[in-house]
Amino acid sequence: MKPLLVTMGDACGIGPEIIAQAYAMGELGGAVVCADLQVMRRALATVGHPGPVAQLADVGSLDEVPPGAMPVWQPPALAPGLVGLPLGKVQAQAGAAAAACIEAAVAEVMAGRAGGLVTAPIHKAALSAAGVAYPGHTEMLQALAAQSLKLDTAPPVRMMLANDELRVVLVTIHVALRRAIELLDTPGIVQTLRLTHAAGARFGIPHPRIAVAGLNPHAGEGGLFGDEELRIIEPAIAQARAEGIDARGPFAPDTVFMRARHATGHPGEFDFVVAMTHDHGLIPVKYLGVADGVNVTLGLPFVRTSPDHGTAFDLAGTGRADPSSLVCAIRLARRLSG
Amino acid sequence: MKPLLVTMGDACGIGPEIIAQAYAMGELGGAVVCADLQVMRRALATVGHPGPVAQLADVGSLDEVPPGAMPVWQPPALAPGLVGLPLGKVQAQAGAAAAACIEAAVAEVMAGRAGGLVTAPIHKAALSAAGVAYPGHTEMLQALAAQSLKLDTAPPVRMMLANDELRVVLVTIHVALRRAIELLDTPGIVQTLRLTHAAGARFGIPHPRIAVAGLNPHAGEGGLFGDEELRIIEPAIAQARAEGIDARGPFAPDTVFMRARHATGHPGEFDFVVAMTHDHGLIPVKYLGVADGVNVTLGLPFVRTSPDHGTAFDLAGTGRADPSSLVCAIRLARRLSG
Repeated sequence: MKPLLVTMGDACGIGPEIIAQAYAMGELGGAVVCADLQVMRRALATVGHPGPVAQLADVGSLDEVPPGAMPVWQPPALAPGLVGLPLGKVQAQAGAAAAACIEAAVAEVMAGRAGGLVTAPIHKAALSAAGVAYPGHTEMLQALAAQSLKLDTAPPVRMMLANDELRVVLVTIHVALRRAIELLDTPGIVQTLRLTHAAGARFGIPHPRIAVAGLNPHAGEGGLFGDEELRIIEPAIAQARAEGIDARGPFAPDTVFMRARHATGHPGEFDFVVAMTHDHGLIPVKYLGVADGVNVTLGLPFVRTSPDHGTAFDLAGTGRADPSSLVCAIRLARRLSG
Repeated sequence: MKPLLVTMGDACGIGPEIIAQAYAMGELGGAVVCADLQVMRRALATVGHPGPVAQLADVGSLDEVPPGAMPVWQPPALAPGLVGLPLGKVQAQAGAAAAACIEAAVAEVMAGRAGGLVTAPIHKAALSAAGVAYPGHTEMLQALAAQSLKLDTAPPVRMMLANDELRVVLVTIHVALRRAIELLDTPGIVQTLRLTHAAGARFGIPHPRIAVAGLNPHAGEGGLFGDEELRIIEPAIAQARAEGIDARGPFAPDTVFMRARHATGHPGEFDFVVAMTHDHGLIPVKYLGVADGVNVTLGLPFVRTSPDHGTAFDLAGTGRADPSSLVCAIRLARRLSG
């Protein structure tokens, strides 16, 4: 099996040390860390697990790593001196290094030498300070995939948040709620349903039951509280169903997540829920805690997961950052790329 | 202590039989059922608990009811023949009877002869068929309270949903999401915060910690994803704080409910959460199940709770309706009116 690549993220945030924690917990099996060697050595010391670091000449030589050593592949493009930067601050050099790791990792996975990516958190302002043209991971991964595939336009992607109870795919994300409503259209929802359906196979569910949450209270109650369900969402569901996708709804947003919830003694009615807005989807995923939430990008030509949190600059260097979400992201990437 | 009044709701829905279930469970202590006698007799038979029904001459004579009998006060205005109506259908006569029970119950509570109201579900279409001028309980209770107090305008009210983990108060409710955003204004949020603060005392929390959820993803991230937080919500919080209300936020909608959640080993950071939209507030309240959710109307001159579900016409007469939410509504009304 091809190795996963875990990118270090912003070297001055908690990324390196949560990777070190995951390694100390034995959760890095089959993965290679795509990072600066010295940064990872420091991170291991920070978390009280100063084990050896094995520098890999290439991603494919994971088998040659001695037992007990953390396998690190340092991309050739990484500039030296990263470890000298102060922790917990926005810095152009850290932004540039984070971007270099992502670029190198995408090249490896697109070349077929890695099975998927797990990305530790980056910082938007550091990327921007480094002159990187993308505001975040998703846009950067889209663009790199398009370049690699020689596509004119980036492939459509969707953000999924998954934990043990729910898998939620979002039609709109980081825009004002007012704007999210304006952006809703039938093709965008159909696209979301296609990507969600395709993700089912990766989860071992070839014909997933996909619930579509409405936009309005009670899913509009037949047009009484808004007509987006009638005008936009129902036609999308009909089109997806005509393509053989088991899309259902639109359902009232306030009860569909309860119905989809998978818990002991409570088998969920659906395998995925498609939500129209960021918070309709993320409120239920996060309600019981964020520790086991994983962000999955659907629509890329490779598996990509990430923890559901940011660089937490205030915690960087303390060794107190919680690696749970990263551990879940690694486990899920392993499952999806298996 | 003054008795609670439990109104029967639509006689052809599940209202009478969930009241009968609550009675069979010993959960009606200190409450009088405001209903048609024959309908309640039938409901007791339906749920397999055909105990005696004691007809009260007035609400104050609860003490004279023999042990083991269900205390029912039949408002004089109720038309006969209700029990002859088919179950599970919208009917004008049932709508009129439901309204008559509510009117009579409000008159009793406003006259100081009852300590609060618990209302079983009514059906909007049946009310309308009966020519009742109000679309639902809340508007009717507002209007009756205003009449009783000889006010020109109805008192402002807000819907709260409460369960063991959360208490959520909604700024907007049954309108299209697009319209809810248009309706948001600083005075409406301040009013919500005042009513929420006042509710604290009833819950035994004189200085409640009130979290205000934002409208936009990440609460707008400083204006990047919408400006309602800056223009509307923050000024409302500032004004409420100037009045001595412990209002905080605005917080990111996707994590504030997790933070407010009260569970074993997880003391919530806040006593109430104010949500801008119906579904931001109700998704987390309902996520773990609706059985223990209670609807509380804040702003009326009396305590009013209700179960968090409708008439469930499809279940009427089967005896299979779940009385849990009604039982929680009765318990909470008892606590709030104590």
